[in-house]
Amino acid sequence: MASRQIPVLDHDAVLAAVSPTEAIDRVRDAFVRHRRGEWAMPPKIYLDCPPHGDFRAMPARGDGLALLKWVTSFPGNPARGLPTVTGIVCLSDATDGEPLMLLDARSVTALRTGAVAAVATRALARSDARSVGLIGCGLHGAWAARCLAVAGYGPGICADPRAEVARALAQELGWEAAPLSAALRQEVVCCVTPGAEPVVEAGDLRAGMHLNMLGADGAGKAEATVGAVASCHLFCDEWEQAVHGGELTGAVRAGAVHRERVTELGAVLAGDAPGRAGPEAITLFDSTGLAIQDLAIAGAALQAWRDGAVDAQTVQL
Amino acid sequence: MASRQIPVLDHDAVLAAVSPTEAIDRVRDAFVRHRRGEWAMPPKIYLDCPPHGDFRAMPARGDGLALLKWVTSFPGNPARGLPTVTGIVCLSDATDGEPLMLLDARSVTALRTGAVAAVATRALARSDARSVGLIGCGLHGAWAARCLAVAGYGPGICADPRAEVARALAQELGWEAAPLSAALRQEVVCCVTPGAEPVVEAGDLRAGMHLNMLGADGAGKAEATVGAVASCHLFCDEWEQAVHGGELTGAVRAGAVHRERVTELGAVLAGDAPGRAGPEAITLFDSTGLAIQDLAIAGAALQAWRDGAVDAQTVQL
Repeated sequence: MASRQIPVLDHDAVLAAVSPTEAIDRVRDAFVRHRRGEWAMPPKIYLDCPPHGDFRAMPARGDGLALLKWVTSFPGNPARGLPTVTGIVCLSDATDGEPLMLLDARSVTALRTGAVAAVATRALARSDARSVGLIGCGLHGAWAARCLAVAGYGPGICADPRAEVARALAQELGWEAAPLSAALRQEVVCCVTPGAEPVVEAGDLRAGMHLNMLGADGAGKAEATVGAVASCHLFCDEWEQAVHGGELTGAVRAGAVHRERVTELGAVLAGDAPGRAGPEAITLFDSTGLAIQDLAIAGAALQAWRDGAVDAQTVQL
Repeated sequence: MASRQIPVLDHDAVLAAVSPTEAIDRVRDAFVRHRRGEWAMPPKIYLDCPPHGDFRAMPARGDGLALLKWVTSFPGNPARGLPTVTGIVCLSDATDGEPLMLLDARSVTALRTGAVAAVATRALARSDARSVGLIGCGLHGAWAARCLAVAGYGPGICADPRAEVARALAQELGWEAAPLSAALRQEVVCCVTPGAEPVVEAGDLRAGMHLNMLGADGAGKAEATVGAVASCHLFCDEWEQAVHGGELTGAVRAGAVHRERVTELGAVLAGDAPGRAGPEAITLFDSTGLAIQDLAIAGAALQAWRDGAVDAQTVQL
């Protein structure tokens, strides 16, 4: 069998290949296609590496492509100058199994996480909502803000215990750095924290607001109190993931939230379920991160490379 | 965060990095380490791509390394000039998640599949067994034969419906190409067929023989009849995999084999369970293929590269 040259997109090449605007369109489409049964996504598997962190193997299939993301969560890494999230996306041809492209997983993850914030906000926030409160201005927070900005939201408030990080992002976007309390007063609140302790309590909720909970992604982590979660009109990316390692986990375990109270985003986007109940509803979207979102980004990157819009390294396998 | 240069081993580089002798030693050690709980291996996940084939995501951890193999089984591929098995092995640091190496999955899979044939034969065949009957002389059959040869077995009989394929392998090893019936008369019989129909029936069994069943790896596939399987002293690589998509599946479903009749190879190698009951026993080893075997090979390849024993391409992520 002949060896094959496979294109490889590093961190910067992924971001050059797929704009936030395209990421938003592709991620939205992925949710609809998955909802309709056209895209497949077996449950992810975890490989624990105690006490340091874990790896996740996340497969998805759609549009003739098969994807596997091999990605980490090593929370102690930043203290050592290493990223929390790193890894590799393998994109293959679903009709013959041949590898088509390798991509840096960190940039794909950041872009698809940011994109879903914009997709959920467009689907669930009040149509007149514009101001954004960003709580947590790390890599994923920055991409959520960038995607919200290109989707027409903002200006916003950037809040982060690391004042210089909040300031830098605010400056990039023409937004403002301010304390948590100011971020919580905006129309769209995005939480992108590690989830070590809640940043949203029931008393912070106001009629008509929309919350995206993008951070806490594992057992025992939460960005909102059970009381706050239980007070909202609830949406998630996927019930199974959300209930086992998402923002809803604590509320479900406490018996405060049941399955029938939670609507999957894909159902809303496909027109199968209603979104926001009215202008005064308080909507909360729990994002746990799906492999179909990664496939949306990787598919766009592959097309950009085939169109000659981005250069790739190549590697022989 | 700085980009990293990651070494990549293609098909030939993997085979240059890890000799059959080292593969056998490493794979044997992997079974023992896994048995002792030092290596971890969550269940593999399948991504079906009907009607063409499927992908498997196979994780494992051990010796400070974390591995994910993203590998295909597309049985119709050879008719199109493409390999049935292809894909990528991602090897990462289990302490910080950083990618360490990418490897061609086809060569890793062939080498570890061949190696386990030698490991199981040494552990389970009669100590005076030497002659080999190889049934199925494709890629994995060839590597099983090569590993058995370096482990001191042979000469043998190469049987394959494709006479020229059997002849070429026999010539390489100084063995003989002959019909299936001749292969079945040898002391160690290795079946490495697609499993579309059984090649071993109960009437083919003779006292003292050892069988390695390396082929059939999915539901509905089998290389031996239920009657033949039920007549043997049974061993497997992992019960869960063997009962769901291995040679034992049919016999278990028919009620002819129960869990307590089957011993895992790791238990024998670790000294926790007896192997062959005596010189007249008929032993059968069902190999379904484990991610710990892939980790054994990938770990050896990484060390070879670090030792400067093999050149690698590099790619930036």
